[in-house]
Amino acid sequence: MKIIIDVMSGDNAPDEIIKGVFIAHSESNHEFIIVGNTDVINESAQKQGLDLNIGGLEIVHASDVIKMDEDPLSVKSRRDSSIHVALKLLKEGKGDALVSAGNTGALYTGAVLIVSRIPGFRKAGIATILPFDVPVMLLDSGANIVVTDENLEQFALMGSIYMCKVMGIKNPRVGLLNNGTEKNKGSQILQDAYVRLEENKNINFVGNIECKVLPFNTCDILITDGFSGNIVLKLTEGFGSFFMQKLKTVFKKNPITKVSAAIVKPGLKQFKKDFDASEYGGAPLLGIAKPVIKAHGSSDAKAIKNAIRAAAVYAETNVIKEISALSETVMKQPHCDSDS
Amino acid sequence: MKIIIDVMSGDNAPDEIIKGVFIAHSESNHEFIIVGNTDVINESAQKQGLDLNIGGLEIVHASDVIKMDEDPLSVKSRRDSSIHVALKLLKEGKGDALVSAGNTGALYTGAVLIVSRIPGFRKAGIATILPFDVPVMLLDSGANIVVTDENLEQFALMGSIYMCKVMGIKNPRVGLLNNGTEKNKGSQILQDAYVRLEENKNINFVGNIECKVLPFNTCDILITDGFSGNIVLKLTEGFGSFFMQKLKTVFKKNPITKVSAAIVKPGLKQFKKDFDASEYGGAPLLGIAKPVIKAHGSSDAKAIKNAIRAAAVYAETNVIKEISALSETVMKQPHCDSDS
Repeated sequence: MKIIIDVMSGDNAPDEIIKGVFIAHSESNHEFIIVGNTDVINESAQKQGLDLNIGGLEIVHASDVIKMDEDPLSVKSRRDSSIHVALKLLKEGKGDALVSAGNTGALYTGAVLIVSRIPGFRKAGIATILPFDVPVMLLDSGANIVVTDENLEQFALMGSIYMCKVMGIKNPRVGLLNNGTEKNKGSQILQDAYVRLEENKNINFVGNIECKVLPFNTCDILITDGFSGNIVLKLTEGFGSFFMQKLKTVFKKNPITKVSAAIVKPGLKQFKKDFDASEYGGAPLLGIAKPVIKAHGSSDAKAIKNAIRAAAVYAETNVIKEISALSETVMKQPHCDSDS
Repeated sequence: MKIIIDVMSGDNAPDEIIKGVFIAHSESNHEFIIVGNTDVINESAQKQGLDLNIGGLEIVHASDVIKMDEDPLSVKSRRDSSIHVALKLLKEGKGDALVSAGNTGALYTGAVLIVSRIPGFRKAGIATILPFDVPVMLLDSGANIVVTDENLEQFALMGSIYMCKVMGIKNPRVGLLNNGTEKNKGSQILQDAYVRLEENKNINFVGNIECKVLPFNTCDILITDGFSGNIVLKLTEGFGSFFMQKLKTVFKKNPITKVSAAIVKPGLKQFKKDFDASEYGGAPLLGIAKPVIKAHGSSDAKAIKNAIRAAAVYAETNVIKEISALSETVMKQPHCDSDS
């Protein structure tokens, strides 16, 4: 596999991204194309004592970088930006998969415009893995503010194939985010989506999911629109920080509580690790015609290494081919009540 | 003040509700009307050694109870249900405020139908206090799946008055729940609401709020539709349970970690208390023409006592009169760009 990495984007770019590529290089047989400003890449590698002249590592120059807070739509015109160049390489088949820790909106928009969607799939979604006891794929976690019931059904199909093939979860349970468990809860779109999910034999639908049970192994994939998904994603992040902060206050109270902290440190470290999104290797942009993985903006080298691993598995397992095949069979059936 | 309490509804009804009324009775000069099946009330009081023949306590019989999972709309026809009878007493002026820990939908629907909304306010919202370091009022937390920009502006006005008068927060900061901080984020309704909130001089608008910063003292009131609000509310609950469960696992690992747990127990207890929604006295149904407080379904006696205290302050501080006055001045101004 040849993996394309945008090394200029992300909070810790380029140093941690480049370091992550080197770790992945040493631990796998993959080849790599790293995209970015060659001067900056050379400087970073030199600083970190990394030799760019190893086999299986190619550098492609991109003079521009779209920053995290810049307009995502600018990816269209900024043809020299690392995201744009990397996506173009992917589209042209120069690599098998792409990883970027950059501006989510720009990566998503660029992927739709440059790489394009899988034919038959009307929306692509960002599929983030939430770090609960049993990981939950949140799809869509932010790309599409407005969705139709058909979009939600397509998310469920794509998510199921990814969770099965890449994450190794057989017959993954699909839940629909709603404000109650009853079939008639939520907007008309959600009620219609419920019927579609229930009737589709390729989906292991477990019903509506209320957020209070979400952390407790109720589903493997949570289907929702990008606005609600964004709330779930951001609140999960916010709570994680909030609780760790509160806990620190409790432990730092006095010398005796500090001793107590030392005793439970390994357990808390494991807890923090369990709750570390970087363990799960980034979010695939499901519905895009080639494998694109969005690594978390705050990714360090380890997170990038994991995202590269996920990108390679995504490409190796032919997930996209399987989704495309599905679009030719299941999705083209007219959806009506007489089907069932 | 005379407070009406539906003692039949809630997970711990009637025992904990009745006990809560007795605590409130002993700690205040308020009078109480408790509504429910007299036989059940007598039995519960006897069992708990509580004397119903104390001054300032009246019992009104209601033979029926709407259970937590029953259809909220049934409140309309079930005239003998405790929620219906209690709301009717409130409407007729037999009491100054009402507390129920029952079926949220039934209480809300009943309040709109029986007590009615404040003239000029098109929707009533459920205003739940989220137990962060600095408490945040979440409005609407579940009643209205679909809202307009005007509804959101009205929520902000009502919430501001309540937080100021009842919670004692001067010039409370109002945030709008969105998937980004920029003005042009979210649906058209949210973008229009942003403009309204920004222009309204009675609202201390601090902009769009992303959920990752929500626990960190970014606003006093978070304005949103009931669907998104429900996600925030339920995820907050779910996350609280999840975190405490994980922490228990860390501490129960072996005898030494158990000692560690004992050392930090007071700190953790305080933390749990800080994160206890029952401390904040329940959720007012803002926009209803008389004070109605929804106590949490799992309320114990302490939570009911706190909800009664909140109900009394809600009534004493003339919040509803002030909201009504606002409807006559601010809300009747035509809203157009030339105003500003």
